[in-house]
Amino acid sequence: MIALERIEQLYRSQGTPLIETPVLPGPGGHLLKCENLQWSGAYKARAAWALWESLEPEQRKLGAALSSSGNFATAFCMAAALWGGKASVVMMPSTAGVKVARVREAGGRVVFCENRYTARFERLAELAREESLTAFDHREHPLVLAAHGGVGLELARQLPEVDCVLVPVSTGGLLAGVASALKQLRPEIRVLGVSPSGNPAAAESFAGRKLVARPVDTACDALTADSPGKLPFQIMLEAVDDILVVSEGAVMAAAAQILARHKLLVEPGGAVGYAAFLENQIQGRACLLLSGGNVDPVRLVSK
Amino acid sequence: MIALERIEQLYRSQGTPLIETPVLPGPGGHLLKCENLQWSGAYKARAAWALWESLEPEQRKLGAALSSSGNFATAFCMAAALWGGKASVVMMPSTAGVKVARVREAGGRVVFCENRYTARFERLAELAREESLTAFDHREHPLVLAAHGGVGLELARQLPEVDCVLVPVSTGGLLAGVASALKQLRPEIRVLGVSPSGNPAAAESFAGRKLVARPVDTACDALTADSPGKLPFQIMLEAVDDILVVSEGAVMAAAAQILARHKLLVEPGGAVGYAAFLENQIQGRACLLLSGGNVDPVRLVSK
Repeated sequence: MIALERIEQLYRSQGTPLIETPVLPGPGGHLLKCENLQWSGAYKARAAWALWESLEPEQRKLGAALSSSGNFATAFCMAAALWGGKASVVMMPSTAGVKVARVREAGGRVVFCENRYTARFERLAELAREESLTAFDHREHPLVLAAHGGVGLELARQLPEVDCVLVPVSTGGLLAGVASALKQLRPEIRVLGVSPSGNPAAAESFAGRKLVARPVDTACDALTADSPGKLPFQIMLEAVDDILVVSEGAVMAAAAQILARHKLLVEPGGAVGYAAFLENQIQGRACLLLSGGNVDPVRLVSK
Repeated sequence: MIALERIEQLYRSQGTPLIETPVLPGPGGHLLKCENLQWSGAYKARAAWALWESLEPEQRKLGAALSSSGNFATAFCMAAALWGGKASVVMMPSTAGVKVARVREAGGRVVFCENRYTARFERLAELAREESLTAFDHREHPLVLAAHGGVGLELARQLPEVDCVLVPVSTGGLLAGVASALKQLRPEIRVLGVSPSGNPAAAESFAGRKLVARPVDTACDALTADSPGKLPFQIMLEAVDDILVVSEGAVMAAAAQILARHKLLVEPGGAVGYAAFLENQIQGRACLLLSGGNVDPVRLVSK
């Protein structure tokens, strides 16, 4: 598990609200943890902030880079602007144009590599040499997991009595961080991962207690790792109680209902916990972690 | 002004979060007060709750009624379910079907009257006699204004140093309640009403310090009173610093931007403060009161 001291050290009170539902005041309903309301629109804000904070002022000026096309890239570029740093993001030319545009809007420089998964990290290393940049592998960086743990630390302080917390899982970084904090501070709470049926790698790895990779075909564009990360997986085996799988249909229904009923924009990957609620997979009172809201709302409205 | 003791008496910690924006941590940005995240999807939840709480158990069983087609009707019916009461809502047959459906979904009974504005209150009085119901005129009920004041009480406790609070205005009930609380607890904060250009009655009444009625043609379906209420207007003259007017175009742009950027679903009438921000009408640091989120999101997305 990630040491509690390390999680606390990195925590910067970038708090998000905990909202009570269903729809009536008083105790009894499930709770929504709104990481979609983070300043970058997803929980990645916390770790992106921690990476820039970890650099010396000179390093920030020279710049830092990583390879991501999703929420981490956006948060990394937004945090750079705040720290007076220069952010570069390595992407494949096959990346969706909207994701490239989002990084540029956030003030980041896009550097293209070959259309090959491993080329991303080769180009990143090259870039670091050529331009004296700091290159981060955010997927396995210990700072990143500990910063994700900040969500769990915050939950440990915010949550009333609940039976379980449901966390989206793909690489498992968020789940590992949240589980580490909660099992040390609120060990009575069950911590459950939730995967969409279109990406069963984490659930199958957990069930067999052995890392496996699986083909990915999911609407959850924030949950597309074909296998959990090594370090997060170790922590999951120690600290997570179970991993649920929800149908792709339930995920889209969940995102639409969260918008219409709870007035919150949540991306499909952030709605998997609510999908488990719609599928009656939850026992007791739950906190559903809405991990992000970076989605075009047109995907969630009936036309 | 409404007495602070009365506001405090009615306050039931039906709290909503205050969120920092623009998009970066640390002080400096404007703040969003999220009454769209209330359990009924709008600030009316507080007053609806107070009305049912004010009844004896026997009265709740006999039932209570009011005439409204919007957010107040929905909140009133949802609160009834929680208090074990029977809610009836008088509406004209010309009311949009979606509003009738929303009241029924919330567990309320719809009673139709003639298609004439004053017929609503005649039918309401009749109903009270025929069925021994309690009939409320929520537009001028003193409990209602004091309960709206709860938003101001909560803001007085939540707000860091800000220069002004921007509040949507139509009948002026919310504005009067919020201004009463803030001027007694945080008199250094300017309290500003905001009207859409399609409903200028409140702004013109305030400017001339005399109640006037004006034709209404606005996309803000929660801001359609053709004139402020008498009691709210008196309080506005005492406690409100100014009333701004924003264009209808800015209102729709504001609602769309709040959704895309801040991940919050807000109805047009709830977005008028943000519209004033888009139109550069705000001086200093502001808190924008997002009064409700009861809108079909399809209205806010580009097709």
